[in-house]
Amino acid sequence: QTPAKPARLGLCAACHGEDGRARVPETPNLAGQRFDYLLKALRAYKSGQRDVPVMRAALGPLGDAELEQLARWYADLAPCAAGAR
Amino acid sequence: QTPAKPARLGLCAACHGEDGRARVPETPNLAGQRFDYLLKALRAYKSGQRDVPVMRAALGPLGDAELEQLARWYADLAPCAAGAR
Repeated sequence: QTPAKPARLGLCAACHGEDGRARVPETPNLAGQRFDYLLKALRAYKSGQRDVPVMRAALGPLGDAELEQLARWYADLAPCAAGAR
Repeated sequence: QTPAKPARLGLCAACHGEDGRARVPETPNLAGQRFDYLLKALRAYKSGQRDVPVMRAALGPLGDAELEQLARWYADLAPCAAGAR
């Protein structure tokens, strides 16, 4: 059962795609990535522990539950269906 | 033509697998990830810009050419062949 599309997905999709296939250079593919890793990375971008201004700006207003939703969305995407090459 | 297995692959394989399927919690799958992103991340781990001691220790002795080799190895792995779920 595909998880509901997170309300904030549009924030991520511009660079990472809704399908988790990065649209921008030096930006990771996210499709099929591990949920626990994605959540850890999102928290690190939000806190500034990973110092990437565009990610901090995008995630700033989001609560942890929304971070989980976004991590779940991308983790559940099949990496090859998205042709994540 | 599959690229030669990097000499240092063993360092990465313990956590990330030779096949790019993470073996350890909160550790990313790498199979089919973008080459340019992987190289950027490896350089950030090596410089300490991304502050992860185990990665800094593993990458410390490596030159940039070896980082490129490792990034190429994982980028060229098909994400779904590795079943990167």
